[in-house]
Amino acid sequence: MTFDPRSVIDAKRVGDIVDEIDLRGLIDGYVGGGIGDGPMAAFLMACVLQGLDRDETSAMTRVFVASGTTLSLEGIGRPVVDKHSTGGVSDGVSLVFAPLVAALGLACVKLSGRGLGHTGGTVDKLEAIPGLRVDRSLEEIRRQAETIGCVIASQSEDLVPADRAIYALRDATATVRSIPLIAASVMAKKLAVHSHLIVLDVKAGSGAFMATLEDATALAELCLAIARDHERPAIAAITIMSQPLGAAIGNALEVAEAIDVLRGAHEGRLRDLAVELATHTVVTLTDADPDDARRRASAALVDGSALDAFRGLVVAEGGDERVVDAPAAVLPQAPVRMPLTAATSGILALTDAAALGEAARTLGAGRRRPTDRIDPATGIVLTPKVGDRLAAGQPIGEVHARDDTAARAAADAVAAALTIGEQPVQVPPLVHGWLEEVD
Amino acid sequence: MTFDPRSVIDAKRVGDIVDEIDLRGLIDGYVGGGIGDGPMAAFLMACVLQGLDRDETSAMTRVFVASGTTLSLEGIGRPVVDKHSTGGVSDGVSLVFAPLVAALGLACVKLSGRGLGHTGGTVDKLEAIPGLRVDRSLEEIRRQAETIGCVIASQSEDLVPADRAIYALRDATATVRSIPLIAASVMAKKLAVHSHLIVLDVKAGSGAFMATLEDATALAELCLAIARDHERPAIAAITIMSQPLGAAIGNALEVAEAIDVLRGAHEGRLRDLAVELATHTVVTLTDADPDDARRRASAALVDGSALDAFRGLVVAEGGDERVVDAPAAVLPQAPVRMPLTAATSGILALTDAAALGEAARTLGAGRRRPTDRIDPATGIVLTPKVGDRLAAGQPIGEVHARDDTAARAAADAVAAALTIGEQPVQVPPLVHGWLEEVD
Repeated sequence: MTFDPRSVIDAKRVGDIVDEIDLRGLIDGYVGGGIGDGPMAAFLMACVLQGLDRDETSAMTRVFVASGTTLSLEGIGRPVVDKHSTGGVSDGVSLVFAPLVAALGLACVKLSGRGLGHTGGTVDKLEAIPGLRVDRSLEEIRRQAETIGCVIASQSEDLVPADRAIYALRDATATVRSIPLIAASVMAKKLAVHSHLIVLDVKAGSGAFMATLEDATALAELCLAIARDHERPAIAAITIMSQPLGAAIGNALEVAEAIDVLRGAHEGRLRDLAVELATHTVVTLTDADPDDARRRASAALVDGSALDAFRGLVVAEGGDERVVDAPAAVLPQAPVRMPLTAATSGILALTDAAALGEAARTLGAGRRRPTDRIDPATGIVLTPKVGDRLAAGQPIGEVHARDDTAARAAADAVAAALTIGEQPVQVPPLVHGWLEEVD
Repeated sequence: MTFDPRSVIDAKRVGDIVDEIDLRGLIDGYVGGGIGDGPMAAFLMACVLQGLDRDETSAMTRVFVASGTTLSLEGIGRPVVDKHSTGGVSDGVSLVFAPLVAALGLACVKLSGRGLGHTGGTVDKLEAIPGLRVDRSLEEIRRQAETIGCVIASQSEDLVPADRAIYALRDATATVRSIPLIAASVMAKKLAVHSHLIVLDVKAGSGAFMATLEDATALAELCLAIARDHERPAIAAITIMSQPLGAAIGNALEVAEAIDVLRGAHEGRLRDLAVELATHTVVTLTDADPDDARRRASAALVDGSALDAFRGLVVAEGGDERVVDAPAAVLPQAPVRMPLTAATSGILALTDAAALGEAARTLGAGRRRPTDRIDPATGIVLTPKVGDRLAAGQPIGEVHARDDTAARAAADAVAAALTIGEQPVQVPPLVHGWLEEVD
């Protein structure tokens, strides 16, 4: 008798536990084409509304991983770290983190999807560099990890095809918002690459996918539980995304900002978080002293070693090397650049990260649908952070747009997204806490 | 900007109310092909789990009706009744009801889908008669209603195409079990036919789709509320389906039993329910005295007038007229007929209608998937009713099967479905209650 998806959907509809055999039947059937979008989407919505427990989520993750090949990274001579961020506004951390840990003697292998956020995913950002191609063969990825120590590449078609198919369906069917489904999707991609440590940056706040600390913590805990179930070391930082992390929101703009950080020319929350993640990674993988590791990470951002690793990545992936020394001359530029100024004097009390992200997306920096093309040049640069004192008329950034109308609309959106007050403001922390799963 | 189904799905996912414009966008988009199975199925599952209120259900019904043509029955010279049963085991009531009310001066127009129950739907049952074709044009239906007074035909492709498409998807995605979705589907089909009265037989019990009286009542109330919203008179009986209604479970077998009832040769619950529904229909449509109407309905089953109406229907729809006088000679016969006997002596305490229905379906009498073919000859005849006293070895019916193995399996299933005890048993009522919506 052929597998009938209806019994599995029915079980989840009434809130029963679904076992791995049934999950495998459903998911493999979907990937193989025997089961259509309808039954899979109905099941996904039932999962969103009825939940999946840890065992079900672990089983789903296992089925995702088993649907494709995996990437072995044995014998490349460096401890390998894989990093994932749940995504936020102006979240260029990976562009800094990967070369930074490479400079510290590790290898960072990060395979990413293209994402449907306010801006593109990490691979979209990198592709803003002329010539750079993120579609690398598994063998190229291995070799680059060995020689350069950092790889940021698009997720190969061979890895977790079930997750790719189901993620696209979730996007089309408004079934994205489920902590277990997110955890299974994130962890399947991480488990399919045989790193020595998985580092998760789980964002909480208005600019992140998880708006509350509770949800972010639940997601991080579930991801680490899955890592334990699959006997893989993992650590997770719960980080605060109540305002944009860096100043740049947009693909080329974020690359330029990351290069500034890598050359030691940019201080602030983006740099600090990259250093914090790199420090924890080094400590976990090498038993280094935390203070020493933090000092080495900070040093690598000023002595040129992290920038060199980034240069190696750009060259290895076919990008124009000159971007490293003169980003503005190489990266695509939007035709219209409109300066932003503070509307009133006072202390910046609130920056609506989600609204800023939407404004950048509207400028063309992000996708609404998987088939949308990203405009790498457009976006917003906003320099002040919550707690900063502003004077009316003070320059606070720039909109990069295709035309004046779009630029004006974005400038209005930025103005509306800022709350300037008189009261002193508590600066939000960068990292809420760390979770570890590294027996 | 094109309609994005995701915002509607999202709204229902979180339990918000969806307005008619959005329902129309989603449903028309689905029927038109612009929206795929995935988004529609996700929305349906969200409806199943989050519910639809009366206004949403009425709106969905309106969108269904507007998706196709409607059938006008003005000026045919008789009050027109349309009847729907939510389906049960051995529920051949429509085969009796339609000619019976025709004999009483009304016209019954019943357009049915093929159904996915334990046996086929009413049209599948009729098609067990050699030559009979249930696919009638709207003009043929009108004419037959006028001349014969009863039509049982398959639902035209032009009527409620949205309901047809969505019902097929619900079947494939385990999203059938939702009182609002059932009500919208039932009522759209009834509203698309311009009858003067809609009569609903909502079954409750183990052999029915609604297992509890509460659910059956809720469904009936919602259907009548939709009728009121659309200014259409409707009445609903909540009837008991804790055991098969008639003796026959199977397509040709149920036709033969209906003919027995129509010729006055069969007493019992099937006949009684048909008379009860016909009586209420006549009273509602013609203001007749209830006792008088009941007497006339009973008389029509013995004086040959109901049988004549059935004969007219069979002839009009191309069937072999001899079936009326010699059903056994004309209807398809299964090669194996295995007698059933009571295993022990005692009082029949319980008949598991659902298990008997499944046994008949396994014999080939019903579909599991929409593409399955029905075997019209197979099924089960089981004569005793709950409360009857049985003697061990007493003949209680017959299995009609394709082969001995299937027959034995069905006979075992029947034995397991009967609970015979020593205690006197309360005979379950036939009709739990009536609801009316006939301002």
